[in-house]
Amino acid sequence: MIKLDKLNRNERIAGLMHILTSKPNFIFTYSYFCNIFNVKKPSISGDITIMKELVEKLDIGTIETISGANGGVKFMPKVREEDTKKLLRDLCLKLSTPDRVIPGGFIYMMDVLYSPNIVRNLGKIFSNKFIDKKVDCVVTIETKGIPIGLMTAENLNVPLVIIRKNSKITEGPTVNINYISGSTKKIQTMSLSKRAIKEGSRVLVIDDFMRAGGTIKGIYEMMMEFGAEVVGTGIFISTIEPEKKLIKDYTSLILMEKIDEENKKIFLRSNYEKLK
Amino acid sequence: MIKLDKLNRNERIAGLMHILTSKPNFIFTYSYFCNIFNVKKPSISGDITIMKELVEKLDIGTIETISGANGGVKFMPKVREEDTKKLLRDLCLKLSTPDRVIPGGFIYMMDVLYSPNIVRNLGKIFSNKFIDKKVDCVVTIETKGIPIGLMTAENLNVPLVIIRKNSKITEGPTVNINYISGSTKKIQTMSLSKRAIKEGSRVLVIDDFMRAGGTIKGIYEMMMEFGAEVVGTGIFISTIEPEKKLIKDYTSLILMEKIDEENKKIFLRSNYEKLK
Repeated sequence: MIKLDKLNRNERIAGLMHILTSKPNFIFTYSYFCNIFNVKKPSISGDITIMKELVEKLDIGTIETISGANGGVKFMPKVREEDTKKLLRDLCLKLSTPDRVIPGGFIYMMDVLYSPNIVRNLGKIFSNKFIDKKVDCVVTIETKGIPIGLMTAENLNVPLVIIRKNSKITEGPTVNINYISGSTKKIQTMSLSKRAIKEGSRVLVIDDFMRAGGTIKGIYEMMMEFGAEVVGTGIFISTIEPEKKLIKDYTSLILMEKIDEENKKIFLRSNYEKLK
Repeated sequence: MIKLDKLNRNERIAGLMHILTSKPNFIFTYSYFCNIFNVKKPSISGDITIMKELVEKLDIGTIETISGANGGVKFMPKVREEDTKKLLRDLCLKLSTPDRVIPGGFIYMMDVLYSPNIVRNLGKIFSNKFIDKKVDCVVTIETKGIPIGLMTAENLNVPLVIIRKNSKITEGPTVNINYISGSTKKIQTMSLSKRAIKEGSRVLVIDDFMRAGGTIKGIYEMMMEFGAEVVGTGIFISTIEPEKKLIKDYTSLILMEKIDEENKKIFLRSNYEKLK
């Protein structure tokens, strides 16, 4: 661990800002900071009091102090309402250009789903939405939802779990579930290592796209096999049709109204209202 | 965009610290900051001068100012040498417990590969290593290397590209490559959307594990098909055997010496020296 002597309060606060914001929702103990900055606890307490007000003024999130044996300080980042609104509106525009129409009723969106600058914010939005659910881990299924899932997990400071579409030797013993994909109507398999999730875990499910919800329903069944509880489901884009989904409670950020393949038109709509 | 009036210099510096460190390697213009903090350019210039010294003092990276029309300020985070050393040593220990031995000569490491707190640092290490290579995008192949790949891409502020193991309808027209996996000796296919990479791109290849290098060689061939240039290859764990790999230049963080399945022993060694 690095030692930083002889920093004044303002330098310490900038340093604390760096440390706290680079590891969201992680509880740092006061002694950790005392050690790094080589000052006594009252100095750090004073810094934190100043920082609490400052992050509120800057409108970037909240700093929480936790008392007790496992106590300390953590920072929970937020995405401002107007920034969320703008991001979703911008993404609807970006994703509905004619060149993105892929035959079969699909949208090309790999560039968006794999862009660190975009998924970082989507992860923050989902973590803000589900922060009160006491999530133990984020679960997604390979492949396209992984970046959003990872960023959500990062902001909640919990592990990510990735369900595979086929049983892999590197996973050790697995639990396998057969499910019917709502779109293709084909029977598919999903597979997860038996040691991936502890019984009783509170799980947040994240995925990039949902039509009927067959895949998500499969994930729910998988979680039941592990004795885990699904406490939330976040989807990047869900379709309007079919209206009746196979699952109930979910939060999607963008609604896909339809794709007009012939005229190469994609109709997307921000689902911002649902987020609040 | 939020407006922050009436902040004093120290508050602005803490705010700047938050903004710059949450988006590594991204060039922020001076006018962006002038706008947010509602001050004139000389004030921001003064703040940045102070910050340059401060991040050096804190030993968290470097702040660079870029002049010219596309000029501005960016922050490049670093992982300190002693922290890298410690992380790799800790990971060798963590990954070599007997319960991780999976029949067939594999290590269970999903928990490590999908942990935001771990892959965040691995991404920083790789971005530090390849920062001078003028990388245009990070390329990985699904699935286990995606989190490290994403974090590397985030720190370099470039897009991530994920090669699929099967051609997917959602990718549109694809380029497909057959390759022989060094470990299984089976012919496999990898597939990438034709629009995923621009000709002339400088590509950094990231993967979680390499034995003979067949998969990485396949990725190189794929990049040739796209007219892209591989400027670096970062591997989390590579094996000592076979000594002769199918590719030459690569940087691996950890070396796997052997797995003794019978006695459930895994022999890993930090490859820290190779990083320098």
